[in-house]
Amino acid sequence: MHTFFIEKTMLYDGTQLSSLWAYRTLGLPGDSIVAFRGPCRLDFAHMVDMEDVLQQSPIYGSDMLHFIIEHFDAGLGRTILRQRLLVAIINEIVSSRGSSLKRDGDDLYLAGRKLSISIATVTPVSTMIHTALNVTAENTPVPAASLVEMGWSGNEIPALAEKIFTAYAAELESVKRARCKVRGVN
Amino acid sequence: MHTFFIEKTMLYDGTQLSSLWAYRTLGLPGDSIVAFRGPCRLDFAHMVDMEDVLQQSPIYGSDMLHFIIEHFDAGLGRTILRQRLLVAIINEIVSSRGSSLKRDGDDLYLAGRKLSISIATVTPVSTMIHTALNVTAENTPVPAASLVEMGWSGNEIPALAEKIFTAYAAELESVKRARCKVRGVN
Amino acid sequence: MHTFFIEKTMLYDGTQLSSLWAYRTLGLPGDSIVAFRGPCRLDFAHMVDMEDVLQQSPIYGSDMLHFIIEHFDAGLGRTILRQRLLVAIINEIVSSRGSSLKRDGDDLYLAGRKLSISIATVTPVSTMIHTALNVTAENTPVPAASLVEMGWSGNEIPALAEKIFTAYAAELESVKRARCKVRGVN
Amino acid sequence: MHTFFIEKTMLYDGTQLSSLWAYRTLGLPGDSIVAFRGPCRLDFAHMVDMEDVLQQSPIYGSDMLHFIIEHFDAGLGRTILRQRLLVAIINEIVSSRGSSLKRDGDDLYLAGRKLSISIATVTPVSTMIHTALNVTAENTPVPAASLVEMGWSGNEIPALAEKIFTAYAAELESVKRARCKVRGVN
Amino acid sequence: MHTFFIEKTMLYDGTQLSSLWAYRTLGLPGDSIVAFRGPCRLDFAHMVDMEDVLQQSPIYGSDMLHFIIEHFDAGLGRTILRQRLLVAIINEIVSSRGSSLKRDGDDLYLAGRKLSISIATVTPVSTMIHTALNVTAENTPVPAASLVEMGWSGNEIPALAEKIFTAYAAELESVKRARCKVRGVN
Amino acid sequence: MHTFFIEKTMLYDGTQLSSLWAYRTLGLPGDSIVAFRGPCRLDFAHMVDMEDVLQQSPIYGSDMLHFIIEHFDAGLGRTILRQRLLVAIINEIVSSRGSSLKRDGDDLYLAGRKLSISIATVTPVSTMIHTALNVTAENTPVPAASLVEMGWSGNEIPALAEKIFTAYAAELESVKRARCKVRGVN
Repeated sequence: MHTFFIEKTMLYDGTQLSSLWAYRTLGLPGDSIVAFRGPCRLDFAHMVDMEDVLQQSPIYGSDMLHFIIEHFDAGLGRTILRQRLLVAIINEIVSSRGSSLKRDGDDLYLAGRKLSISIATVTPVSTMIHTALNVTAENTPVPAASLVEMGWSGNEIPALAEKIFTAYAAELESVKRARCKVRGVN
Repeated sequence: MHTFFIEKTMLYDGTQLSSLWAYRTLGLPGDSIVAFRGPCRLDFAHMVDMEDVLQQSPIYGSDMLHFIIEHFDAGLGRTILRQRLLVAIINEIVSSRGSSLKRDGDDLYLAGRKLSISIATVTPVSTMIHTALNVTAENTPVPAASLVEMGWSGNEIPALAEKIFTAYAAELESVKRARCKVRGVN
Repeated sequence: MHTFFIEKTMLYDGTQLSSLWAYRTLGLPGDSIVAFRGPCRLDFAHMVDMEDVLQQSPIYGSDMLHFIIEHFDAGLGRTILRQRLLVAIINEIVSSRGSSLKRDGDDLYLAGRKLSISIATVTPVSTMIHTALNVTAENTPVPAASLVEMGWSGNEIPALAEKIFTAYAAELESVKRARCKVRGVN
Repeated sequence: MHTFFIEKTMLYDGTQLSSLWAYRTLGLPGDSIVAFRGPCRLDFAHMVDMEDVLQQSPIYGSDMLHFIIEHFDAGLGRTILRQRLLVAIINEIVSSRGSSLKRDGDDLYLAGRKLSISIATVTPVSTMIHTALNVTAENTPVPAASLVEMGWSGNEIPALAEKIFTAYAAELESVKRARCKVRGVN
Repeated sequence: MHTFFIEKTMLYDGTQLSSLWAYRTLGLPGDSIVAFRGPCRLDFAHMVDMEDVLQQSPIYGSDMLHFIIEHFDAGLGRTILRQRLLVAIINEIVSSRGSSLKRDGDDLYLAGRKLSISIATVTPVSTMIHTALNVTAENTPVPAASLVEMGWSGNEIPALAEKIFTAYAAELESVKRARCKVRGVN
Repeated sequence: MHTFFIEKTMLYDGTQLSSLWAYRTLGLPGDSIVAFRGPCRLDFAHMVDMEDVLQQSPIYGSDMLHFIIEHFDAGLGRTILRQRLLVAIINEIVSSRGSSLKRDGDDLYLAGRKLSISIATVTPVSTMIHTALNVTAENTPVPAASLVEMGWSGNEIPALAEKIFTAYAAELESVKRARCKVRGVN
């Protein structure tokens, strides 16, 4: 799958969660994970998580590290499993500087404060994931944790992003290999 | 899904990786994760991982914590994702005593020594996973790590098993819920 | 799956056949069958059955018992089988007062007069069913049968609805169990 | 799908539940429902229902009407839905002589006595159903009901079989048509 | 599956690639392949091939033989395989007059000049294919080949269309039969 | 996917149609197409095509070019489509020396004489195809055509095999790309 970091800061406003986004904007065909840094501002019309809409939870962050993933196969259930695996991978990588994160499904917490947001959904031709981590935690709607606080400085963000998406792509590659080396049993 | 710990020590010899095993031996119908403790001894005829067979890697352990999982839906690919998630969960739980494990796909390593074995395969009616952790690391075919060495004493094994399978069942339950709360996008 | 009866009378106008309706309006996450009583008035823009649109068959009823079902798995074919099973269940329950209904696919007839309407369709994240039974048969576009005529008085409707959706939920639960107790054959 | 009645009396011993049986023995390629009359005698090795094996329930009947169905698509879950629909259809047809049968999942009861047995399972290339009705109820392992007792004489069995398999084939044909006439919704 | 040739000349403008088109406009329910002759003019808003949109490749033809196909099962991947098979069939039939076409995926070339366009996509309830061949090659955006040039005169087009869609329908029918005559292996 | 030509002459006796064959014997993990040259001799116990078994058609050839393909995804139907595409590709390549082959489903004929045999089937973990072409046509059970007769000399067979499997792999690669460049329609 393609992995890519967009150097330019960009606003995440939910329009990126749309089929063929990486192909249309970056020319990347097929499965991809794309990262960029920027604020996050979502009006309710662009939220896909009905739980947030029902609870009127605003989604907002002034400086986040975003990942947009697209997989061209059917099966939202399968992509939610991939999303969980991505969050577990982020946990493994981000925690390596000593902070003790707690993963609860697709959420990451540092001492009860939320570090991340994440959602997985379906398009007519693919499934997609958006996951984002607070780089800083200013002006967040709820008390939040941040990468900076955990020892990742702002200029390390591109390298951290690459570490994460490389691990994600390697994981899925190895899942595919594992699929092809077992015999069935009765 | 059902979760169960078998009190009695049992040998894992590969025959447990067979459809409806938990139903036939424990009366548990449907999806299940069952744990037990015991040695592990697999002749090549019972190995499902052709990589091990090709490399003639013996699979052996004198004292391991075993998990046998069965999911009654099609899709080996999906169950391999669940297997990875299980191993990530084990990593999160076992590491909580301070040791720094490294997960590489479905393997866990402590300072380069292997703590675990794991395989996922398919039956005519379901998919299954076997994952096992060394309780001690004596007489293993390769230098190995063990739960005891990481601070989990022998009589804590049942509680550790329960922690792990409860977390796995909760994870899959929350995956199912996540599947039902998003709208699609274009 | 969730079962629920909405006490308040409500118009069915087709907007209920929309993904996550039970979650958005009743807070019920996941698979559900919801019943309510009320008139039925569908303009052609809200009809999903192209056969009705092509034949310009109006869909109208002044007092009906409605069921809205949502299943969060793919497969319209599978949900049409569930729809047929629902109509067979309704037949078994409603006929128990002695009237002899005839089921023809997803339609129920009493002496040639139609008692019910039903449609199954797909949303981006789920499949849905709408089935409705005439409580009375006044002002229907074609000669129709009614529950009242078959011996179910107006104030028995909530109890009848519950009988039906309980049986439907139990049927699907037992289908799931049956899935997990057989071995494959050659 | 093919429908066929085998004139000659035949023993059902479980070997008929094997892929391509109708093709290999009758030359019928593709989906089929085949009926025949004869005794039923199943040793445990040929039982596919592990519940019966666990409970050591013998399966035996001296004179039954058998249906063997094969569908060449994946999905045991879908075929269990079809099995339930078949049993509902049998209920609708057999009850038409005035007896009041009760369907409970894939079982039919007359006043608490069992009329039928049924199982659905999977082969490497298809899914299959066996359903059988007691023609008479002599020498059955548990108190049983019979078609004769419900007013269907022995020489009406071929006609009854045809009524049932014609209705089953028509139902599935109409399910397929229903699949192709709806638009999706949001 | 239904096969149909529309006698009247019609413009292909992309609106035909919409679910249930053959049912809504011709009354043909279920899988179908419909052919007609006419110009082709697609604005970018109706293009489904993002590659063409990205490259701003106009799609235009003054006189083409069009095929619109709809299959009511899930799986864009499977329908792309069918599309390739259709193009291979067209190659086999059109080449029979001696010209040597070269097929490259879903494109046909005569001496480097393009004879055809083709796309496969997904609707909420089905998958669809549009394939078109130049009858003449005037005013095409790129140097093009034509059926006329290959020896198929204008008034042979309906017969050619029929030859093609009959072969396509027969191919898929025989694929279905092949699905039902093999046993599985280990 | 892996492509490979085995230099050594080998007998095809049906045992090659077994899951993970290319992995177990050549170390090739994942999807693969492997070619080799040799006689073909199949007893009925190793035939997977029940039509041949029913008709007692012997399968025999003294010198054939064989292709063994394995795809690690479910769906026999999809693999039969791939098989047809392979045979169409062989037709396009082999015919390029001027002979006019006729493809009928998965069979190739030269002037009514059969050039090829082909079957697709399913394993517990994958789907597989065997296709073989007569290099010479001596001692065949029915009058047969051969590659030699069509202008491909014996020592060109490895190059021809490579041409074919390279085209097949490229076709499936381009199918995968086509899957990822379209938007859905309504």
